[in-house]
Amino acid sequence: MNIILFDKTDYYQNENYIRLSDYRFNHISSVLKSGKNDTLKVGLINGNMGTGKVLEINDHYVDLSITLDKRPPSPLPLTILLAMPRPKVLKRTLKHITVLGIKKIYLINSFRVEKSYWQTPGLKQETVKKIFINALEQACDTVLPELYIEPLFKPFIEDRLPDIIKNTVPVVAHPKNGKRNVPASGKHVTLAIGPEGGFIPYEINKLKECGFEEFQFGERILPVETAVPSLIPLLIQ
Amino acid sequence: MNIILFDKTDYYQNENYIRLSDYRFNHISSVLKSGKNDTLKVGLINGNMGTGKVLEINDHYVDLSITLDKRPPSPLPLTILLAMPRPKVLKRTLKHITVLGIKKIYLINSFRVEKSYWQTPGLKQETVKKIFINALEQACDTVLPELYIEPLFKPFIEDRLPDIIKNTVPVVAHPKNGKRNVPASGKHVTLAIGPEGGFIPYEINKLKECGFEEFQFGERILPVETAVPSLIPLLIQ
Repeated sequence: MNIILFDKTDYYQNENYIRLSDYRFNHISSVLKSGKNDTLKVGLINGNMGTGKVLEINDHYVDLSITLDKRPPSPLPLTILLAMPRPKVLKRTLKHITVLGIKKIYLINSFRVEKSYWQTPGLKQETVKKIFINALEQACDTVLPELYIEPLFKPFIEDRLPDIIKNTVPVVAHPKNGKRNVPASGKHVTLAIGPEGGFIPYEINKLKECGFEEFQFGERILPVETAVPSLIPLLIQ
Repeated sequence: MNIILFDKTDYYQNENYIRLSDYRFNHISSVLKSGKNDTLKVGLINGNMGTGKVLEINDHYVDLSITLDKRPPSPLPLTILLAMPRPKVLKRTLKHITVLGIKKIYLINSFRVEKSYWQTPGLKQETVKKIFINALEQACDTVLPELYIEPLFKPFIEDRLPDIIKNTVPVVAHPKNGKRNVPASGKHVTLAIGPEGGFIPYEINKLKECGFEEFQFGERILPVETAVPSLIPLLIQ
């Protein structure tokens, strides 16, 4: 944990103080071993970052006096469309996406996505929020990504996608026939990543009709949880 | 599994035939549902790739007639020095490294590496080989990476490192004071990645004395298993 994140429910007395008694308290007490007057890096979820000074720490809670004077790092200029992976991979991939600083994630359907994946408890709002917060605590960021769940391919592509890709460079990671590498353009990118086995030709054609360009990195077939962190930085200036 | 890998112990009668009865047979039988005369992508570990034609398949084994006429993809021109991560992260990180096509991996020590990590059964030769083979089967490659275990920082840096980095561009991922990004140079790169919490100043100085340049991607603190796949492609032309 490289930053202690909190939200408005943690305020104590007024907005200058927070009291923590859960896993964050345990971290401050047992890992950081902080004492009175120590300062810690803190951040308001979806707000500014700054410092928290320890006013009191005992066996049950810690009280911090907070100063929020720093903006969180800028979002990475990239929106990701990810074919719904299997639940274990979903969790790790959402973590990669969040620590890298992506703020818009669309989980989309594809012929090769197993229908059962959409039923995973891993998609529950509180589960996803936990993954995001854990990743932000690692990355030193405060801004939660927005996750959109889109289990219908055709309506998503036809009705929603044109607005999403407006003013962005749309590219799709596709291991066949792609250019080796799309250089960073300096513009906001929309990156589509298919399921294990790839998008089927019909899906690739639908994406190309919308303006997506195919690209690949190297000659090897990357699993989703490697492809996501490998390809994102390549597309960012 | 995107390629069926085998070694010389799988030869049956002569070098033109293999008989498989383990997880590879299960994959061919149950996932690919292959029948007589179907052809599959196969590869000889540390050798060529090609096709295997199903001669016989029954409830217990499959016999393939093999033709090895294609070289595996070229190795990525990058050597990685990785501060020993905790065992769970080690496994996933070795997988990222292998699917990307890196062939030389040095696991090194650092002040912030917990001593107990070096005792993990995850470092056993057969465990590591399983991870490598699984990753090569995914990536469609045949060449096993070489893993060097270097639990002593100073002797490694002073005695071994100069030869390792000869004729390469040595860079170290370091979240502080680094350049935002080292552009791909077209040369072989030696990439050092520290532990969670980073290398300590003494270690960074030792690396800089050897010629390493610091760099970082973005403003966020990346965990090792994101840093590895994120940074490697950035450094490759």
